[in-house]
Amino acid sequence: MLIRSLLTENNIFNSTEEIKEWIRQRNRDVKVDIEKIPFSKMSMWHSEQDGSLCHDSGRFFSIVGINVRTDYGIQSSWQQPIINQPEVGYLGILTKEIDGILYFLMQAKIEPGNVNCVQISPTLQATKSNFTCVHSGKKPNYLDYFVNAKPNEIILDQLQSEQGARFLRKRNRNIIIKIEEEVSVLEDFRWMTLGQIKALMAEDDMVNMDTRTVLSGLKISDFVSLFNDLTEISKFGSDLILSSKTNHSIFSTRQHLSWLTSLKSRYDLSVEKYSILKMKDWIKNDFEIFRPDGKYFKIIGVNVTISNREVASWSQPLVAPMQQGICGYIIKKINGIYHFLVQAKLECGNFDVIELAPTVQCLTGNVFLSEEKPPFVDYILNAKKEQIIIDSLQSEEGGRFYKEQNRNIIVEADESFDEVLPDRYTWMTLKQIYDFLQFNNYLNIQSRSLISVLPYK
Amino acid sequence: MLIRSLLTENNIFNSTEEIKEWIRQRNRDVKVDIEKIPFSKMSMWHSEQDGSLCHDSGRFFSIVGINVRTDYGIQSSWQQPIINQPEVGYLGILTKEIDGILYFLMQAKIEPGNVNCVQISPTLQATKSNFTCVHSGKKPNYLDYFVNAKPNEIILDQLQSEQGARFLRKRNRNIIIKIEEEVSVLEDFRWMTLGQIKALMAEDDMVNMDTRTVLSGLKISDFVSLFNDLTEISKFGSDLILSSKTNHSIFSTRQHLSWLTSLKSRYDLSVEKYSILKMKDWIKNDFEIFRPDGKYFKIIGVNVTISNREVASWSQPLVAPMQQGICGYIIKKINGIYHFLVQAKLECGNFDVIELAPTVQCLTGNVFLSEEKPPFVDYILNAKKEQIIIDSLQSEEGGRFYKEQNRNIIVEADESFDEVLPDRYTWMTLKQIYDFLQFNNYLNIQSRSLISVLPYK
Repeated sequence: MLIRSLLTENNIFNSTEEIKEWIRQRNRDVKVDIEKIPFSKMSMWHSEQDGSLCHDSGRFFSIVGINVRTDYGIQSSWQQPIINQPEVGYLGILTKEIDGILYFLMQAKIEPGNVNCVQISPTLQATKSNFTCVHSGKKPNYLDYFVNAKPNEIILDQLQSEQGARFLRKRNRNIIIKIEEEVSVLEDFRWMTLGQIKALMAEDDMVNMDTRTVLSGLKISDFVSLFNDLTEISKFGSDLILSSKTNHSIFSTRQHLSWLTSLKSRYDLSVEKYSILKMKDWIKNDFEIFRPDGKYFKIIGVNVTISNREVASWSQPLVAPMQQGICGYIIKKINGIYHFLVQAKLECGNFDVIELAPTVQCLTGNVFLSEEKPPFVDYILNAKKEQIIIDSLQSEEGGRFYKEQNRNIIVEADESFDEVLPDRYTWMTLKQIYDFLQFNNYLNIQSRSLISVLPYK
Repeated sequence: MLIRSLLTENNIFNSTEEIKEWIRQRNRDVKVDIEKIPFSKMSMWHSEQDGSLCHDSGRFFSIVGINVRTDYGIQSSWQQPIINQPEVGYLGILTKEIDGILYFLMQAKIEPGNVNCVQISPTLQATKSNFTCVHSGKKPNYLDYFVNAKPNEIILDQLQSEQGARFLRKRNRNIIIKIEEEVSVLEDFRWMTLGQIKALMAEDDMVNMDTRTVLSGLKISDFVSLFNDLTEISKFGSDLILSSKTNHSIFSTRQHLSWLTSLKSRYDLSVEKYSILKMKDWIKNDFEIFRPDGKYFKIIGVNVTISNREVASWSQPLVAPMQQGICGYIIKKINGIYHFLVQAKLECGNFDVIELAPTVQCLTGNVFLSEEKPPFVDYILNAKKEQIIIDSLQSEEGGRFYKEQNRNIIVEADESFDEVLPDRYTWMTLKQIYDFLQFNNYLNIQSRSLISVLPYK
């Protein structure tokens, strides 16, 4: 059912091409106006004494300053602004079996920060403020299906982290449910097969981050049965399934846990609130919180006006990156089994000090690369065409980030690639990655995004 | 090798009776003098402006106040003092194979808070302050073996939590290593088999909490092979091994993860530093931080003098409980497989909101029980003799707690015991418990303590 969904690209409701046209049409229909405004002009927002930006309700999110101290990396202490949103939100996808194929109810969602306003998003994207403050707005569509889901309707239900460099310990409930009853398809929603979503992920900026994190938890190999027709699965896809099922890994999970324990014990991470106005290297004026050296990112205030069937308008801060980034996995067949080169990375907003990141996760602007080049960046950037499994631009969450894209790339290393790795790196089979992924706060969001775009066809 | 160790109770170095006599003798030899003193007289300690108690070095631990807000339980907000020790320490046991049997190098360790000064503790118990501030003291014994352990010498290596009601997000590295080379056995150390340690655990206050948490990670069934002589394993022991290996559980791990995700999403927990002097319901004077209603615990200052071969003396705060507690598991055979009745419990110092606690974990003093009785307490307290698998008093860590004991009890439920459970409770096989245990911050320390005392003989 899921496997047939994975292998089906022309569904009875709309072809993949029609979905693309639908997104393009939605982009034409909607007018999104993002106007940069001073923080003091943001309606419903105010600056606190220490410079932090807060919503007047005290809910939603805020931009606060933090002071970070750690013995990891070359910088032992720094200050930075970060998004504080101490609530667990829902990222939920509703599915239904139709003619033996599992369909995913996806939304064409406008988010102000997206490079192209509309992207394909989960059925439900709701913060706790969204779905508990029902008095001040209407209840999110389809919320009740998730709130009332019975255990046997739940396919996947995981607590997963967001970007550790930008969010302070933020987590979302990633959930997929399968419903028996009839579901009415609202105007901005369409049924899609997993195969269609995967095909759309191969394109730039089409499938949003929230969709990618939810789907990353679906371990394809769990759904393969003897009764599936697998002839349409590619050689690479069947190698991925082998890597998801095998016990033949070069390191055992016990060794991985010991490696993680030793790193989490070795590195201290202390994060404390800090006045934005006193942060070293950062300046806040009424327009931006920024670094004079132009590094990393800045905070801006915007007024958003969306004109569609009706007009909506609101103000909010957004995080605007100063460089593009790259998230890349190197994979290699070791003893006939694909292994992923995983990095243990400390980021200041991590819930548990260290999470498992892709081989390479860094900025690619000139500023950063001139300073210090992390391991394996050159290998990925110089990969030959035939080594590249996927290579596309993916957007980060458009509700918080302003036109932030990362290049997502997976490269297959050749025979000669050294299997001996630096301290913070290890090899994992896809089975081991999924084992860690199902427990919360192991795989970081950049890792999950890459796992979700793995192609099986 | 480990199984033979588990089944051996008379080792070549000393019988179990000799070990008990050794501990008794050590207790006679040592004079531990605990004098209650005012906080202002504690040498090397001072009170901060907000009333918190800190070591002059800024290291080790401190007693701080916190303000807790949560939507879990009947009390939505409270203040309390808590132990803050933001360092990962080592709890390490060194093992060695001798004549085909695995031996554990255990220590007779004096801790000021123990009801009986000396208990059996791991080879190494060291905070980061202990082993990094080498200038101000000598290096802990056997430390280097752990620091330099190679991956193939590591049997177990996990990051595990401490008491969430008393420690603020404290974790330790629980590690067992197996050494090939000769090891010199220092005066306070002895080689013991796992069977001997298990036998000693059945007695009151003999094996300390740190030993119990480290050994809880050893999944016995992983070490059983076709070549072991298992005739000495009891019927109950073989049923435990079955429960550790089976896939036949009434709930799947996917269901458990969904259950935990939903609870972690539902309950908010906010913990912020708060002035001890302003805490509601608590009073600090120069002698104690206590509640006038006599509930829960109090903080006292002590001067410790230990006279042995040499005299050592220092001051420190200790946490003194106001009641004894009980930690109990109900287990039941369901479809022929032992299932453990596990509770999802929120405690204010938990690293990740909710951890898996025993069926019952509460105080047993009159004060508490008169207020509200948690589920299953009566069932455990009224269990018939033939239902009781283990029942002993175990001490909490004597370096921080003053004469704190909990009754550790495991009760087998009869056929009629209802398998339908309240919201925050579930059934898990021992396999599922071990699966969660190996990932950090799932099983709480009370759960692990009970798992470690499970008898196989």
